[in-house]
Amino acid sequence: MHAKESIHSNCGVVGIYGHKDASQLTYLCLFALQHRGQESAGIVSSDGKNFNHLKKRGLVSDIFSDPNTFNKLPGYIAIGHNRYSTTGGDIEANVQPLVMNLKEGPIAISHNGNLVDSSILRAELMDRGSIFQTTTDNEILIHLIARSKKESFSEKVKEAVTKVKGAYTLVIANRNELTAVRDPKGFRPLCIGRKEGAYIFASESCALDLINAKYIRDVKPGEMIVVNEDGFHSEMIFPEEKKAYCIFEYIYFSRPDSKIFGDNVDKTRRRLGKNLATEKPAEGDIVISVPDSSNTAALGYARTSDIKFEIGLIRNHYIGRTFIHPIQKQRDFSVRIKFNPVEGVIKDKRVILIEDSIVRGTTLKKLVNLIKNAGAKEIHVRISSPPIISPCYYGMDFPTKSELIANNKSVEEIRMHMKVDSLEYLTQDGLLKSVENGDNHYCTACFTGEYPVEIKESFSKGQYEED
Amino acid sequence: MHAKESIHSNCGVVGIYGHKDASQLTYLCLFALQHRGQESAGIVSSDGKNFNHLKKRGLVSDIFSDPNTFNKLPGYIAIGHNRYSTTGGDIEANVQPLVMNLKEGPIAISHNGNLVDSSILRAELMDRGSIFQTTTDNEILIHLIARSKKESFSEKVKEAVTKVKGAYTLVIANRNELTAVRDPKGFRPLCIGRKEGAYIFASESCALDLINAKYIRDVKPGEMIVVNEDGFHSEMIFPEEKKAYCIFEYIYFSRPDSKIFGDNVDKTRRRLGKNLATEKPAEGDIVISVPDSSNTAALGYARTSDIKFEIGLIRNHYIGRTFIHPIQKQRDFSVRIKFNPVEGVIKDKRVILIEDSIVRGTTLKKLVNLIKNAGAKEIHVRISSPPIISPCYYGMDFPTKSELIANNKSVEEIRMHMKVDSLEYLTQDGLLKSVENGDNHYCTACFTGEYPVEIKESFSKGQYEED
Amino acid sequence: MHAKESIHSNCGVVGIYGHKDASQLTYLCLFALQHRGQESAGIVSSDGKNFNHLKKRGLVSDIFSDPNTFNKLPGYIAIGHNRYSTTGGDIEANVQPLVMNLKEGPIAISHNGNLVDSSILRAELMDRGSIFQTTTDNEILIHLIARSKKESFSEKVKEAVTKVKGAYTLVIANRNELTAVRDPKGFRPLCIGRKEGAYIFASESCALDLINAKYIRDVKPGEMIVVNEDGFHSEMIFPEEKKAYCIFEYIYFSRPDSKIFGDNVDKTRRRLGKNLATEKPAEGDIVISVPDSSNTAALGYARTSDIKFEIGLIRNHYIGRTFIHPIQKQRDFSVRIKFNPVEGVIKDKRVILIEDSIVRGTTLKKLVNLIKNAGAKEIHVRISSPPIISPCYYGMDFPTKSELIANNKSVEEIRMHMKVDSLEYLTQDGLLKSVENGDNHYCTACFTGEYPVEIKESFSKGQYEED
Amino acid sequence: MHAKESIHSNCGVVGIYGHKDASQLTYLCLFALQHRGQESAGIVSSDGKNFNHLKKRGLVSDIFSDPNTFNKLPGYIAIGHNRYSTTGGDIEANVQPLVMNLKEGPIAISHNGNLVDSSILRAELMDRGSIFQTTTDNEILIHLIARSKKESFSEKVKEAVTKVKGAYTLVIANRNELTAVRDPKGFRPLCIGRKEGAYIFASESCALDLINAKYIRDVKPGEMIVVNEDGFHSEMIFPEEKKAYCIFEYIYFSRPDSKIFGDNVDKTRRRLGKNLATEKPAEGDIVISVPDSSNTAALGYARTSDIKFEIGLIRNHYIGRTFIHPIQKQRDFSVRIKFNPVEGVIKDKRVILIEDSIVRGTTLKKLVNLIKNAGAKEIHVRISSPPIISPCYYGMDFPTKSELIANNKSVEEIRMHMKVDSLEYLTQDGLLKSVENGDNHYCTACFTGEYPVEIKESFSKGQYEED
Repeated sequence: MHAKESIHSNCGVVGIYGHKDASQLTYLCLFALQHRGQESAGIVSSDGKNFNHLKKRGLVSDIFSDPNTFNKLPGYIAIGHNRYSTTGGDIEANVQPLVMNLKEGPIAISHNGNLVDSSILRAELMDRGSIFQTTTDNEILIHLIARSKKESFSEKVKEAVTKVKGAYTLVIANRNELTAVRDPKGFRPLCIGRKEGAYIFASESCALDLINAKYIRDVKPGEMIVVNEDGFHSEMIFPEEKKAYCIFEYIYFSRPDSKIFGDNVDKTRRRLGKNLATEKPAEGDIVISVPDSSNTAALGYARTSDIKFEIGLIRNHYIGRTFIHPIQKQRDFSVRIKFNPVEGVIKDKRVILIEDSIVRGTTLKKLVNLIKNAGAKEIHVRISSPPIISPCYYGMDFPTKSELIANNKSVEEIRMHMKVDSLEYLTQDGLLKSVENGDNHYCTACFTGEYPVEIKESFSKGQYEED
Repeated sequence: MHAKESIHSNCGVVGIYGHKDASQLTYLCLFALQHRGQESAGIVSSDGKNFNHLKKRGLVSDIFSDPNTFNKLPGYIAIGHNRYSTTGGDIEANVQPLVMNLKEGPIAISHNGNLVDSSILRAELMDRGSIFQTTTDNEILIHLIARSKKESFSEKVKEAVTKVKGAYTLVIANRNELTAVRDPKGFRPLCIGRKEGAYIFASESCALDLINAKYIRDVKPGEMIVVNEDGFHSEMIFPEEKKAYCIFEYIYFSRPDSKIFGDNVDKTRRRLGKNLATEKPAEGDIVISVPDSSNTAALGYARTSDIKFEIGLIRNHYIGRTFIHPIQKQRDFSVRIKFNPVEGVIKDKRVILIEDSIVRGTTLKKLVNLIKNAGAKEIHVRISSPPIISPCYYGMDFPTKSELIANNKSVEEIRMHMKVDSLEYLTQDGLLKSVENGDNHYCTACFTGEYPVEIKESFSKGQYEED
Repeated sequence: MHAKESIHSNCGVVGIYGHKDASQLTYLCLFALQHRGQESAGIVSSDGKNFNHLKKRGLVSDIFSDPNTFNKLPGYIAIGHNRYSTTGGDIEANVQPLVMNLKEGPIAISHNGNLVDSSILRAELMDRGSIFQTTTDNEILIHLIARSKKESFSEKVKEAVTKVKGAYTLVIANRNELTAVRDPKGFRPLCIGRKEGAYIFASESCALDLINAKYIRDVKPGEMIVVNEDGFHSEMIFPEEKKAYCIFEYIYFSRPDSKIFGDNVDKTRRRLGKNLATEKPAEGDIVISVPDSSNTAALGYARTSDIKFEIGLIRNHYIGRTFIHPIQKQRDFSVRIKFNPVEGVIKDKRVILIEDSIVRGTTLKKLVNLIKNAGAKEIHVRISSPPIISPCYYGMDFPTKSELIANNKSVEEIRMHMKVDSLEYLTQDGLLKSVENGDNHYCTACFTGEYPVEIKESFSKGQYEED
Repeated sequence: MHAKESIHSNCGVVGIYGHKDASQLTYLCLFALQHRGQESAGIVSSDGKNFNHLKKRGLVSDIFSDPNTFNKLPGYIAIGHNRYSTTGGDIEANVQPLVMNLKEGPIAISHNGNLVDSSILRAELMDRGSIFQTTTDNEILIHLIARSKKESFSEKVKEAVTKVKGAYTLVIANRNELTAVRDPKGFRPLCIGRKEGAYIFASESCALDLINAKYIRDVKPGEMIVVNEDGFHSEMIFPEEKKAYCIFEYIYFSRPDSKIFGDNVDKTRRRLGKNLATEKPAEGDIVISVPDSSNTAALGYARTSDIKFEIGLIRNHYIGRTFIHPIQKQRDFSVRIKFNPVEGVIKDKRVILIEDSIVRGTTLKKLVNLIKNAGAKEIHVRISSPPIISPCYYGMDFPTKSELIANNKSVEEIRMHMKVDSLEYLTQDGLLKSVENGDNHYCTACFTGEYPVEIKESFSKGQYEED
C-alpha cells in the first residue's frame, strides 16, 4: 500500500441546506468551482434519514452526466467537493466528500486546506486503535469527532477542530444538519449565499452566481456555523488572532469573476498589473498575456504603460486530462499543445509577456521559445507577483523548496536561463499595495518563508515522503 | 431506420504520406483542428498492405487516450477526420474516415463540405443495386469509384468527382497512395505541409504548426494531388472557374492562428473589427467581446474607436459535450453556464459588445440579459459580419431559412428583441473590404442568398427532412 | 484489413412474425439456442416502418441484460441470430443478423450454414462494383437481392438463392414480411411453431418449448415460406433432390431436448449408445460419460451392457469465454479447469468412458490422463460415432483434414496415443441404424469424405486461408 | 445509507503462503470454489512490504480476465474470497477480503461463516469511537485486532477471536504472515494443502485438486495456524468442545468431488440417496434428479431401488446473474428457463424425482408442473434430507422461519401443495446414518431447531431487519 503521509491540495467545497434540489445546486456550484480541482469530485446528500453519494475521478460534468443521477441523490442537504490533484496512493478511497458511519449515524466532510500536524495526530489515533481508510487530512477530523465524548454533534466538531492546526475550511453534513467551519487565520475563502430560503456555502462567489443565489457574506475566520431545522447558528469558536488569507488565491487560483476575502479578484488582479507596470516598466510594442490566468493583469499593465494589449497566444481548451504525447522527442511540445503563438501579432514585435508567477520555470521557458520562433524581436517578461521561494503548507500544491527556480537562482540568472531580454517581478511591497490591509491580513509565506502557523520540524521533512 | 437524406457539416480533414509516425502526426493534427468538429473523430492508417482504423464519437484526446493506440495504427500513410455535428440517424456508421473494401482493396475517405446533389445521386446508385451503409455524402463518392471502369485508381477518383457537385475537400487513402482533391470553387480550405520528407494535407495551417511541419501552399481549387512511391503529382482536373471561398471561415470558423485562403485569420478578423468601428461607431466606456471567437474583432474595434478593451465575460471551458441542465426553469441558464459577467468590469459602464454573427439570436439575447443584470448602464451590440439571411448548402451547419432571425426581422426589430440600446452589423461592403479580392473570390451566399453552385429545387426542399 | 475469404460456422437462427412481444420472444429463443453459438448474438425488429437492432459479441443473457432493451426493439416482426465462432477478421461487422438498406428499405438476414461457392460469387459481385462490408456468406445473398430486377421481394429472394449453393437456412425480415428458406438438401434444421397467432421459426424445437409455443412442423428442404399481412405462404422453390441432413446435429450439436429432422435428439443419441454397446462391448465396472454432451449415449451404453452408470467427471460451468490460464506450464490444465474426476467413483475401477466424437484428440488425451491419476484401474474409451476423417463444408466448424486425428492414425494408433486399454468407434452402419431412413437422408461427409454438394477444387483449398 | 445489521452467508476462502505465483494460484482456487459464492470475489497479495488487491462484484473468471492482472498482484502471500449473496446495502465496500490499515501495517481478512453476536459487539466498538466501513462480520474482528494491546500479531488475533462467538473460518494476511483460524465447533470446512513448498488453505479440497496441490489435512476446530518465515505453527487456542460440522455442506453446498470433514462429498451424498431408497421406496418406472446437485443422490436411490436412472431434465448453464424475464406473465417461466424436461424420457412414465432439499418450495412446485406437462403419468418426489424448519445462524443463507414451507405445512400438506402423487423426506436418523459419527459431530439445527451456539433473543429477532 503506497501512500503519502498526507495528501493535501487546494480544493473547492460546497454545502447546501434547505433546498429540495440540494444535490443539483451543489453540482452546479462544483461546476463553477471546477478550476479549484479537476482530479475528482463528489456529492453527498441527505434527506434527513439516509445518505447517498456519488464520488468519482474526473470532471464534474463527466461525473454527473447521467440525467438520473440526481434522483439517486435526494434530500434537502448536500455537500460537494472538487479535488485538485494527488500524487500517489490508493486514490479512489481519498475522493471527497469523505463519508463515514459513526455511532450517531453517517457524516460527510468536505475539506479545503491542509492540517499542519496531521502525521503526528494520525499516529496518536492509530496507537489508540483507530483504523484509517484514507490518507486525507479530514479522516483525522472524523476520528476526532467519533472519539469525542461531547453530547451534541456541534460540540464534538468544536472539540475536534480545536485539536488540529493549519488551514481548513470545512463543510460537514450529518443526517439533518449542515456545519461550516473556517480556521482562525482564514487561509482559504468560504462564502455564504442564499437562494429560495436555502443556505449555500461555497469556496468562491462565482458558484453563487451560477445558481442565481445571493451573496451574503464570508464565513469569518474562526467561525463555526450550524444550520438545522432550528435555523442558522453562528459561533466564534476561537479567540481572535492575526489573519492569514492566502494571497495566491488573488494572484492565480481564484476565478476573476469571484469575490473573495471581501474584494473582487478581477480588480485585485488588475491592480497587480498596474503596480507591476509602475514598478517595472518595459520598452515594447505590445503587451500579451499567458492566457487565461494572466489576462487581467496584462490588461492592467497595458493600460498603465499605454502599450497595446494583444492576443498573442491562442490557448487550446480541448486538452483533456489524459492527453498523450506520442512523439516525446518533439521540442517544446508539451507547451505547444497548449498554446499556439499568433504569428501575425508577434512577428517583428518587441513583446512584453505578462505571467502571474513562476514556479519551476519549465513551462515559461518553452513558451518564450515558441514566441521567439514566431518572430518576436525582443521578449520582456513581467511577473505579477514576487519570486516564489518557499513551499506552501496550507494547501497550495507547490513543489519542494529545491524545485522552486527562484530559490536557486537570482532574477538575473532566471532571465539568462529563460533567454529573454528582460525579466522583472512585482515586489513584495507592490503585492501588498494591491490588496486591502495588505500588511496585516495575508499569508505570503511562499514569497517570504515566514509561516503564520508553525511547522514542526519532523513534519516538514516527512510530508512529501512515502512511508 | 431513421436517417436524414444527407448529413453534412463543416469538418476537419488530415492526410499524411511518407512518415513512420503517420497516425500519431494525424492525431496531433486532428487535435489542432478539434474546433472544426467535436462530434466524432477517426484515423485510418495503411502500411502498404493492411488498413487499420480507430473511429469513435467523442473528442480527439479522449478517443486516442490509450498510449498503445498507435501501435494498432501502423504505417506510413494515415488520414483523419473531425466531425462537427449530426442531427439524427445511425450515427456510429457515419463516423469518418469512411472505410470500404473495393475489389482492388480497401479505401478510406475523409470529406469536408457538402455535395449539393447527393439525394439524386444516391437514388440513382441504389436503383442500380448499390447498398449504402451510411447517410454521408462521401459514401456516394466511394460507390462512384467502385463502379468506375477506369483502370488506375486516380482515374477512378477523377471520374467520380466529375459526377458530383458542391463543396468538397477530400483526402483519400488506398493501400499505397494518398489523394487530395479540392472542388473547383474551393469552398473549404486545404493546405499542404512538409515534415521530414513526408507530405501533410490539413484543413488549416494550425495543424502544421503543432507538428512543426512547414507550410508549403494551399491545394488549389480544382486540383487533384496524388502522392505515392513515385512522388507528388498535381493535376488540375477541372476547367478554371470563379472561386467561392467560404468567407465565414474567416469570420468565425477557422482558428485565429491559422492561415487559410492565403491570409492570416487573425489579421482578417481584426480588419473586420476595424472596419466595423469605422462603419458603425458607438458611444461607450468599454469594448468587450463574446469570448473567444470575437476577441480579435473586439480588439480591432477598440483600437480603431480608441475605447478601452476589457475582459467582461469569463468563459467556462469545462463544459463537456454531455453537460446536463438539471434545473431547466432557471432563466438564461444555458448561457450563464458558459459565460459569467465580471461585475467589477461591467457595473455602471456603457458596454460595447462585439459578436461575430447572429444566427437565431437566442444565445445573444440571454447574454445581453446577463450583462444588464451585472449592472451595465447601456449595451451597444456590434456584429462583425452582415445579417445572415440564407442557409448554407456547402457545409456550414446553419438552420433553415425560417429560423434565421435576420430573415424574419429588420435590424431595428432585432435590436428591440434583444433589448439593447443599439445594434449594428458590418455591411457587405465592409466585409468584402476586409479580405483580399473580396469581390471575386468569396462565397457570401449566407448574407446574400446568391449561391455560386445551383441548388436544384427538389433537393433544397428535401434535404432537411426525414425520409 | 485482415479477413478470411469466408467465415462460416454452425449457428442458431430465429424469426417471429405477428407478436407484439416479437423481440422479447426472439431473445428467449436465442437463449434456448445459446449452445449453437456463444460468440455473438443479435436481434433486429421491425414495426412495419422502422428497423431497430441490437447486435454484440457475448452471451445472449449478457447482451440483453438491460430491462429497457426491448423498448428499443419494438415491432411485431423480429429475427435473431447466435454465432458460433470466428477465427479472425473485423468481427464486429460480421455479427448477425446483417442489416442493410436496399432501395426498397432495410432488410435483415440471419443465416445458418455455409455457401460452398462464396469466394467466386463474391469476386463476381465486386467486379461489378458491389462493396462488401463483411466477410459473411449472407452479405452475398443481400447483394444478389439488391441487384435482382424482379419486382416483388419474395421473387428477388428466390432469384438470389438459386444463384448460390451449399447449406443454408435463412430467416429474412423486411419492413413487413418474414421469409424463411431452407436449402434443397436440408443440411441444417429449421422448425415452425405457433404461439398466440404468431409464427415462429427456430433452428431447434427447444426454442419453441421455452416460449411455450406449439411445434407445427419443420420447414421442408427447398421450401420458401413468406409470412405477411396476407398470411402464411409456402412454396417449394427447388426441384426435389436427395436429402443431406447433418447427422452430426444428432451426435453432438443439437440439444437433447430438441426435436430435429423429425426425431427426438435424446432418443437418437440413446440409440447411438445402445448400438455402440452391441457393436463394441467392453469389460468394465462402471460407465461414465464426458458431460454433458455424451450423457445420454452413456446411459444407453450402460443399459444395454448392464454395467453401472456413474457420474465420474464433474464439469465446471463457470468457465467464461475469457478464462485465462495464468500458469501455462501446468500439465493437463486446460482440461482440468473444465472437468474434475470424482476420485471416490473412479478409484480402482475399470472405467468405460463414453465420448460422442474425437476431432483432434487433444482434450480426450488429457482427460484420460486425469482419470488415470484419479486411480482408474483400466480405461476403455467408446465413441458414439465413426472416426472423423474429412472437414465439413456445410457449417460445422471442424479443422482442416490434416488436423483430424483419425485422418492420420489408425484406431489402434489412436488408442496407443491416448494410452488407454481399449478404444472403439461406432461403425458407419451402426450410425445409420440409429436414425430413420439412415441410408438416404443424411450427410455423413465428415465420416466418409463423400460430399453431397460438390466443392470446387480452388475453393476447397482457399477457404481456410487468409487473403 | 441502507444497511443490514449484519450480512452473512456461506462463502469460499483461500490463503496461500510461500509461492511466487501466490495470487494466480489463489485465483484458480477461487475459481474451483465458485459454487460457494457468485456475488463477488477478491484477492489480496503481499510481497512482504506492500499490499495489492483486486476486488469486485461478478464471477471469478470475469473479474480476473485481464492477463496483466497478476502482475499487479505480486508477492508470495495471497488470500482470496468468494461471496455468496447479499440482500442490501452499500455492497462494494463489503466485498472481501477486507483490507484495513492498522498501526503495524495493512491486514486483510477472508471470512466464511457468521458471528452470532455481531450487532452487540459492533455497538460496543462504536461506543468507544471505532468507525465501521462495512456491514460485514469480519470488520468487527479487525477492530478487535486493532484495539488489542498484545504485542505480537498472532496474540492480537487470538485475543480478538476469543471475544466473538459463532461460525468462522478465517484466513488473515499481514505483510509477512498468513494466519488461518477455525472456530471451536468447526461449522465450516477448511483444509490444508501443499504445493512446491507452499502452504494452501481452502474451503474445499477441490481447490487443491485444480492447482495440483496435495491435500494434507483439515484445519482442526479451534486451531490457529500461523505460517511465516519461521515455518508452520499450529496452536489449539480453545478448550475442546463438541463439534458442529454443518451437515448441509454434504447435502447440497459443497462440490461432489470435494473431501470435507474427512469424507468424500460424493460418497456421502450417494449414501443419502441409498438410505432414502431404503426408508422411502417408491413405485416408479424411472428415477430422475434435479440437476446437478441431486445427481449423486438420485444415482444412489436408483441403484438401491433397482429402478432406471434417467436424465429427464436438461439444465441450461448459460443463465448469467443478470438474466431478465421480459415476459413476466409466462407461467413457470423462472423454472423453465433453467430446466427443460426431456419429453421422450418422461412421457407416460411414473417418475421418481430426487431433490436434495425443499426451502420455500416455489421452484419445486413449478418444476413438478413442467414434468407433468411433459407427460409424466405419476410423480413421486423424494428428498434426500429431512424437512427444513429453522433458519441457520451460522452462515447458510436460509430465509426466515415463516418462509420455510416445512415450518408451516405437514408433509402431506406439502404434497398436496406440490400436486404430486407422493412426497417423502429422509429421516433425521437416516441423515445421521449417512455420515461418520453422525450423533456427535454435526450441526443439524436447520432440521431440529437445536442450535449448538446459543443465539441471544434480541439478536435473533433483529438480525434480518434494517436498522
